[in-house]
Amino acid sequence: MNVDHLSSPIGYEPLPSDGPYGDDPAFPLHHGGKIEMRPTVRVRDNDGLALAYTPGVGRVSQAIADDPKLGWSLTWRSNSILIVTDGTAVLGLGDIGPVAALPVMEGKSLLFKEFGGVDCVPICLDTTDVDAIVETVALIAPAYGGINLEDISAPRCFEIERRLQERLDIPVFHDDQHGTAVVVTAALRNAAKLTGRTIPDMRVVISGAGAAGVAIAEMLLAAGVGDLLVCDRGGVLHPDREGLHAIKHDLATRTNPDRFRGDVCSAMSGADVLIGVSGGSIDPTGISGMASDPIVFALANPIPEIHPDDAHAAGAAVVATGRSDFPNQINNVLAFPGIFRGALDAGATRITEGMKLAAAGAIASLIGSDLAADRIVPDPFDPRLAANVADAVARAAMAEGVVRSR
Amino acid sequence: MNVDHLSSPIGYEPLPSDGPYGDDPAFPLHHGGKIEMRPTVRVRDNDGLALAYTPGVGRVSQAIADDPKLGWSLTWRSNSILIVTDGTAVLGLGDIGPVAALPVMEGKSLLFKEFGGVDCVPICLDTTDVDAIVETVALIAPAYGGINLEDISAPRCFEIERRLQERLDIPVFHDDQHGTAVVVTAALRNAAKLTGRTIPDMRVVISGAGAAGVAIAEMLLAAGVGDLLVCDRGGVLHPDREGLHAIKHDLATRTNPDRFRGDVCSAMSGADVLIGVSGGSIDPTGISGMASDPIVFALANPIPEIHPDDAHAAGAAVVATGRSDFPNQINNVLAFPGIFRGALDAGATRITEGMKLAAAGAIASLIGSDLAADRIVPDPFDPRLAANVADAVARAAMAEGVVRSR
Repeated sequence: MNVDHLSSPIGYEPLPSDGPYGDDPAFPLHHGGKIEMRPTVRVRDNDGLALAYTPGVGRVSQAIADDPKLGWSLTWRSNSILIVTDGTAVLGLGDIGPVAALPVMEGKSLLFKEFGGVDCVPICLDTTDVDAIVETVALIAPAYGGINLEDISAPRCFEIERRLQERLDIPVFHDDQHGTAVVVTAALRNAAKLTGRTIPDMRVVISGAGAAGVAIAEMLLAAGVGDLLVCDRGGVLHPDREGLHAIKHDLATRTNPDRFRGDVCSAMSGADVLIGVSGGSIDPTGISGMASDPIVFALANPIPEIHPDDAHAAGAAVVATGRSDFPNQINNVLAFPGIFRGALDAGATRITEGMKLAAAGAIASLIGSDLAADRIVPDPFDPRLAANVADAVARAAMAEGVVRSR
Repeated sequence: MNVDHLSSPIGYEPLPSDGPYGDDPAFPLHHGGKIEMRPTVRVRDNDGLALAYTPGVGRVSQAIADDPKLGWSLTWRSNSILIVTDGTAVLGLGDIGPVAALPVMEGKSLLFKEFGGVDCVPICLDTTDVDAIVETVALIAPAYGGINLEDISAPRCFEIERRLQERLDIPVFHDDQHGTAVVVTAALRNAAKLTGRTIPDMRVVISGAGAAGVAIAEMLLAAGVGDLLVCDRGGVLHPDREGLHAIKHDLATRTNPDRFRGDVCSAMSGADVLIGVSGGSIDPTGISGMASDPIVFALANPIPEIHPDDAHAAGAAVVATGRSDFPNQINNVLAFPGIFRGALDAGATRITEGMKLAAAGAIASLIGSDLAADRIVPDPFDPRLAANVADAVARAAMAEGVVRSR
C-alpha cells in the first residue's frame, strides 16, 4: 500500500466483510472518505475561545462588514475553492449521480491540497438542470475564491461555465475542459520539439468534440496551430454540416481551413498529430498514412482509442495516453493544483487562455534535457511542478490585469 | 495568546499595518482564516495515486452507483455537515451579509472539529430569499450528513428549517434556536435543583420571541414546564392579540395558561424564572417581585438585559448570561458539537425534541456535586462533555427510530 491513513475516522459504518470487493485496496482506502476539515488555530481555553469565537470574532466580522475587501485577508477565502459536479459525466462511468461522484471529488480535493496547498470543498449537486446549477453555485460562492467545475456532461458544461464566469468575479474553471487542454498542449509542445516540428506548421486532428475536445481545440488555436480538424461521430466539423450545436458550429468556422469533409480516418491522412478524446476506438492502420514521425495521443480512459503497442507498431513516434501504466500519462493533476494556486495567489478574477498557455509552458519546460519519446510530460510528484505552474499563471494574470483590486 | 496557528497560510494579503485594529489579537489570529481542508490519506507515488484517484476511485464510485448505501461508508459523508448562513442575524451585529459572516462560520467549524470531531464546511449564501435558500441548500446536500443553520433572522429561520427538514433525510438544525434552547434547558434544570424547584411547578417568563425565544419556549414545554409566558415588544403573547405571526400565535395558544395580559415587568411578578433573549433591557427592580430565590438568565450579547451585578443586588439567587466574563455562560458550544456527533454516529435523519432533551440532560448531569449558584453549566473544555452529549443523543435517536436504515 502506498497510501497511509493520517487519522482514524469515527462514526463510520463497517465495510461488509463479505462484500464484492475482494482484495481491491481501493475500498479500505476509501473507508470514511479521504478528506477532513481542520482548524488552523488551536483554541486552548476560554480566553482563546473569546478570540476565535464570540466576542472576538464579532469584531472581525464587523471590520469586514465595514470594509468588504478585508474578507479576503481575514477568512480562508483567499485559499479556498469549491469543486462542483452534478455527477453526469464521472470519469468513464457516465451519469452516476451526485453521491457516487463524491469519491472523485474527494480525490481531487486531496490532490489540490497535497500538490497546491488549496483548500477544496466538494459540492455534489442534486440537479442536472443548467439554470439550477448556475443559480446554486452563484449563491454559495461568497465563502470561496474559485470554482472548479468537474465531470459535468457536454454541451451543458459550456453554458454553465460561461454563465457562472459572467456572474462571478472569481475564477470558474471546468477542469475536464481546460485542465486536459493545458496538459495536452504541454505534451504536444514537447512532442513537437522531439520530432522537429513547430506548432504553427502542424496539422492536428482531434477525434472527439465533447468537453475535452472543444477545449483542446480552443487552446491549440490560441497556441497558434494553423491546420486543425475536429471530428465527432458525424465526421470532421465543417460549417456547412447540418444540425451542429452552436459550440461545434462556432468551432467549425475557425478550424478546418481547407473545408475538408470526411471521417477521422481520412482526416488523419498526412496529419502530424492525432488526439483522441472520443472514448471510441480508432483503426491504428490510419497511422501509417500520417506524416512521418507521427504523434498519437489516445486519451480515452480506461481503454485508449488506439492501444499504445498498436500505435507504435503502426509507426507512431510519440504516444501518450490517459493511463498511469503507460509512459506519457496526460494527467490533469499536472495542471490543476498549480493553476488554482497561481490564480488564488494573484487574486485572479478569471483564468484566461493566456494563463492556461503559461501553465502549459511551465509544465513542458520542466522536462528540459530529459526529453524523450517516453518522457514528454513531468512526473506528478516532481516537487517543482505546482510551484512553477503557479508562478507562471500568477505572472500571466498580473500581466493581463485580470486580478481584483487590492 | 491562547491560540496557536497550526500552519502557515500562503497567498494571503498582509493586514494593513496602519489599520484601525490596534492591539486587538483577534485580527492577527484571523489572518488567512481559521480552517482548512486536509487529506486523511497521503498519496506517496503513482501507485497510491492510482488508488485514491483514477482508476481506483472509479471502482469505488461505481460501487456506490450500484448500491447507494455505500455512499455513507466510502465517503466523508458520515462525518461531514454544512454550516449555512445568509448573514442576516450574525451575533449581535444583525444583517452584515454573507462574507462578513464567514469568520463566525469558520469559528463554528473549528469548534465542531475540535470538540466533536465533525467536519463542518461553511456556506455563506448570497441571497436572503427563503425559497432560494431552501432550494440551494437542498441541492448541495448530497455530499453531507447534516445541515447546521446559523445566524438567519426570524421568522424566516423557522420556515427555512421546516421546509429543509421536510425535504431532506439528514438532520437540519438551526443552532441559534435549538442549541440555545438545549443549553438553557440544561442550565435551568440545574438552577431549579439548586433552588429546590421542580420543572413542572415553575412559572417561567421568556422575554423575546425571536429564534431563541421560540425554541426555548418549545423545549421548556417539551420538558414539562406548566406555566410559561413568552413576551415580545408588544407584551405577553396571548391568542387574542392582533397581528401575531403564525409562529407566535401558535405559541400563544400553548402558553400563558391564565391568559395573562401585560408587559414583561408585570409578567415577572411571582415568576420563578426570567429568561431574557430579547436584546433589549429589563428593569432589575422587577426581580424583587418574583418568587423567592428567583432565577435570572439575561442572555443578550454583548449587553445582558439586566447586568449580573444588578440582578444579584435585586435578589436573584442564580444568574446566567451569554458572556464569557461572568459565571454561568450559556454558550452553544456546550451543545452543538456533541449533538451533531451523536446524530452522525447514529445515522439520524432528524434531531427531535427527545434528542435535544437528552442532550440537555447530559450537559446538566456533568455538573454533579459541583453544583453551585455560580456553576450551573459545565466548562466547554470539560473533556467528557461532547462524548456524553453525543452518547445521549445517539441513544435517543435509536430509541425513537429516527435513523436511516443500514
